Amino acid sequence: MAKDKPSKLKARKPQAQLPRGFADRGPAELAGTRAMLETIRKVYELYGFEALETPFIEYTDALGKFLPDQDRPNEGVFSFQDDDEQWLSLRYDLTAPLARHVAENFDKLPKPFRSYRAGWVFRNEKPGPGRFRQFMQFDADTVGAPSVAADAEICMMAADTLEELGIQRGDYVIKVNNRKVLDGVLEAIGLGGEENAGRRLTVLRAIDKFDKVGPSGVEDLLGAGRWENPATESGDFTKGANLSNWQVDGIMRFLNVEPSAGIRADSRRFSKAEFEEKWGSDPVEWFRHRDQPALATELHNFFNDWLGIFGAAPPIFDDGIAELREIAKIVGVLDYGADRIRIDPSVVRGLEYYTGPVFEAELTFEVKDEKGRPVRFGSVGGGGRYDGLVGRFRSEPVPATGFSIGVSRLASALSYLNKAEAKPDFGPVVVVVMDRDQSAHYMGLVAKLRKEGIRAEMYLGNPKNLGNQFKYADRRNSPCVVIQGSDERAATDEVGNPRPMVQIKDLIEGAKAAAAIADNAEWRESRPAQFACAEAELVAKVREVLDHHGVPHGEALG
Amino acid sequence: MAKDKPSKLKARKPQAQLPRGFADRGPAELAGTRAMLETIRKVYELYGFEALETPFIEYTDALGKFLPDQDRPNEGVFSFQDDDEQWLSLRYDLTAPLARHVAENFDKLPKPFRSYRAGWVFRNEKPGPGRFRQFMQFDADTVGAPSVAADAEICMMAADTLEELGIQRGDYVIKVNNRKVLDGVLEAIGLGGEENAGRRLTVLRAIDKFDKVGPSGVEDLLGAGRWENPATESGDFTKGANLSNWQVDGIMRFLNVEPSAGIRADSRRFSKAEFEEKWGSDPVEWFRHRDQPALATELHNFFNDWLGIFGAAPPIFDDGIAELREIAKIVGVLDYGADRIRIDPSVVRGLEYYTGPVFEAELTFEVKDEKGRPVRFGSVGGGGRYDGLVGRFRSEPVPATGFSIGVSRLASALSYLNKAEAKPDFGPVVVVVMDRDQSAHYMGLVAKLRKEGIRAEMYLGNPKNLGNQFKYADRRNSPCVVIQGSDERAATDEVGNPRPMVQIKDLIEGAKAAAAIADNAEWRESRPAQFACAEAELVAKVREVLDHHGVPHGEALG
Repeated sequence: MAKDKPSKLKARKPQAQLPRGFADRGPAELAGTRAMLETIRKVYELYGFEALETPFIEYTDALGKFLPDQDRPNEGVFSFQDDDEQWLSLRYDLTAPLARHVAENFDKLPKPFRSYRAGWVFRNEKPGPGRFRQFMQFDADTVGAPSVAADAEICMMAADTLEELGIQRGDYVIKVNNRKVLDGVLEAIGLGGEENAGRRLTVLRAIDKFDKVGPSGVEDLLGAGRWENPATESGDFTKGANLSNWQVDGIMRFLNVEPSAGIRADSRRFSKAEFEEKWGSDPVEWFRHRDQPALATELHNFFNDWLGIFGAAPPIFDDGIAELREIAKIVGVLDYGADRIRIDPSVVRGLEYYTGPVFEAELTFEVKDEKGRPVRFGSVGGGGRYDGLVGRFRSEPVPATGFSIGVSRLASALSYLNKAEAKPDFGPVVVVVMDRDQSAHYMGLVAKLRKEGIRAEMYLGNPKNLGNQFKYADRRNSPCVVIQGSDERAATDEVGNPRPMVQIKDLIEGAKAAAAIADNAEWRESRPAQFACAEAELVAKVREVLDHHGVPHGEALG
Repeated sequence: MAKDKPSKLKARKPQAQLPRGFADRGPAELAGTRAMLETIRKVYELYGFEALETPFIEYTDALGKFLPDQDRPNEGVFSFQDDDEQWLSLRYDLTAPLARHVAENFDKLPKPFRSYRAGWVFRNEKPGPGRFRQFMQFDADTVGAPSVAADAEICMMAADTLEELGIQRGDYVIKVNNRKVLDGVLEAIGLGGEENAGRRLTVLRAIDKFDKVGPSGVEDLLGAGRWENPATESGDFTKGANLSNWQVDGIMRFLNVEPSAGIRADSRRFSKAEFEEKWGSDPVEWFRHRDQPALATELHNFFNDWLGIFGAAPPIFDDGIAELREIAKIVGVLDYGADRIRIDPSVVRGLEYYTGPVFEAELTFEVKDEKGRPVRFGSVGGGGRYDGLVGRFRSEPVPATGFSIGVSRLASALSYLNKAEAKPDFGPVVVVVMDRDQSAHYMGLVAKLRKEGIRAEMYLGNPKNLGNQFKYADRRNSPCVVIQGSDERAATDEVGNPRPMVQIKDLIEGAKAAAAIADNAEWRESRPAQFACAEAELVAKVREVLDHHGVPHGEALG
């Protein structure tokens, strides 16, 4: 424990720096996220879910340890002791706290209990590009619903949500699989039983990494293990599941990938030609374009053929297929075609607590990766059935299913899609300070604008340098600036009655004019887009400027 | 460190329990808070502030230690080490992270930098009634503004915000004081200089507790110290500032309280009669009802008289009074009377980092305390000027001022005020499951309702017991239930063409009828408020029921 002594802390000036993996967020990002969350909320409410929030901190043992890829005991979770020496943790997802909430309030809640929750979660992991230690999730869950109709509903809600957010049909797909099917496959290759629970998990995690490490990476992870940089056998080494070649072969074929020569050599049970003859060159692609109930049947036949090679179909496999078929039927009847919701045998989901159907929401349009290569945007959410999680706290099992959106991932997808139509966000109208002793009067001008719903402020920095005041207005992207010196303030009408004036400088118009005027002196001379009006007309004239440029202004207060 | 061993953790069923000081929040509370936050946001935007969010976790030394009442080094803050062994902390307010943000991005930000931030903060303290370890604040700050016009603006914004939230004028007051005035008073009683910094802080904290512990409690805290239960001298003992009697006397008089006999005996410099002759029986009350600029002048005179008794007026005192006078002038010109913004010498604010004006937003209407006695609702926010906080990170000082709303406190005030008009929140329309194999069809009925913006769901629990399904609809406060058995589904029109029907049970009407029907059998017989319609008319008929009862339904998707 390398703890700084207080004296050392005092002596040193602290660094103004965020820890790695954390980020500040400014107005544009916040406005985008806020609008997105409102849309998701609207859809979830319509589906009958109701709002819930749980705190960020829970007892460590109430959260449990279900994170993928955590081999060391305290890895992944931020934990600490409170002043009663109890171990507390920051939540790492929104599902474990929901399970605690349901178990704690079981008798008070309507059952099924349908809630949605949006909030930040924390992972004590090595941060990387696009990988944060604090990120937001938006979850919806139905607890106490044994029927897979609840799973089907969540898939349809995910599809509706993405479309309501403006993602075109065809640019996304909700992929569905079933852990029972996966478990059946694992049982068929000899990995059934309690004693193989750890190995099964390692295998599932290997399959889950398919998109990241590719077929040969999965092969390595199913076998002896994988180096971070396989070519040079350097970096971190991840221990594998140590399966035999025939088992690896089985799983690779289940993933519709031809195993590599080394694996194939001593385990191949049919040739590539035989494979293609049975199922075509890309059987999953072929399944994907069929209508859904038929798809589940074909899938069943396909897996049964596959299992015929590696072993008999265990009952759990048939249960899984029956559930997929029921989901396929419901979404089919409700006209969600395979272009929206699709059964896909490669979906695993990394978290340990899933027990039945699992889902993954994937955006299928292409973006450029950091090296400029086109890649699919990829996953923006996922979920599944976790019938054991609430039961951790209780004597009886409580079936449950849910879906979680990765808010930041989805927000960056939306900002990518809307990039073309992003408009500049205008700042407040700025009243500059010409005379320091007139603060109260300038604040009065500002108050008049605000009362009419026009965003406005007086310049509050040191007013000595007028240039700095205009620079500030530019930095805030102000639509216009209001100026009143002593001459304007002392102005009179033709018969000598006081008639104070103000100058309004239209910065939007000015910016256009500036493009044509190169010289600073000439700029000052010509004062483009500046005009005078009576102080009494201030609000009306500013409103004219805003309306002329289509700058939104709000409703009046009160 | 009493850490559980992993084996023990596994063996024990975890408790479904939140740690003390944390709370779950349901739909009604969340909807209320959301509406409140939107209103605050609208006002702050209008004032020209822009949105910012910082993360929950910062480097421990970047946050610094400015919490009141923290004597042990790590008390108050949740801290932990990340996997690089760096000390991290959960933020305890939104001001320290803002200072870090401004210092880290100094050259990129417009100056002054005006931001608002809403978010959760954490305190590792003993929780109590209404005292949570996670609570929400809503802050606005102007960084880089030396002028007290920025402070005046924030006080006016606080007043506008409370009124915009529906709090009547007269039910709140923004109280303003100045740390410089307080510091001048402390200097006058011999507590100036760096060597007395610690004692000054103890004195300020004692004054800050005035509302909680009363005059005699403050006297104790200014002297030797105070027992948690003074009568029995039991409970925790808080060490005092160890001032001499004449110093305690000075401060008590500054607070407009007659010191107790023991203190007064050897330090009294004027009699109660002399006091009243100079300033009346309640001088602060008297000041309060004057117009504001005059108030600052009178206050000056009052304090100068007071200082004439205890010592000379140091320059910092006059600076503080001048600032109060400038604030009073601005709010006076802008028509914020003493009924809204008021100078009050007893305001301190507990946090260590304030350097100038300090504010406190207080709700003045009465509520009942836990023993049923009427008490003022009290503080819902506060703030002040903290010119040194950003400078912790930089070579030059950066002036700044801000205001923080205690969101939960304010929300509970609003729900108290609106109690009379609170309406029940309706749940979704529930389609019950009469035939298990018709899930897909029932889901189709639900989808039709949702497509038209009507909140709806199919019952997803075990459908065997129809009574449970109706009980569920009641628990969710559903406006109506849709029922379709095999008879309804097989219904035909007069010439024998299929014309499937549904039953709609109006639960709102039903609840009214139930009041008049005592017997369960009679209830079933009469089926109050239930009617049949063609399945094709479902949406139209449900909408009629909702409109009849004024239940809001949203816009359609898409």
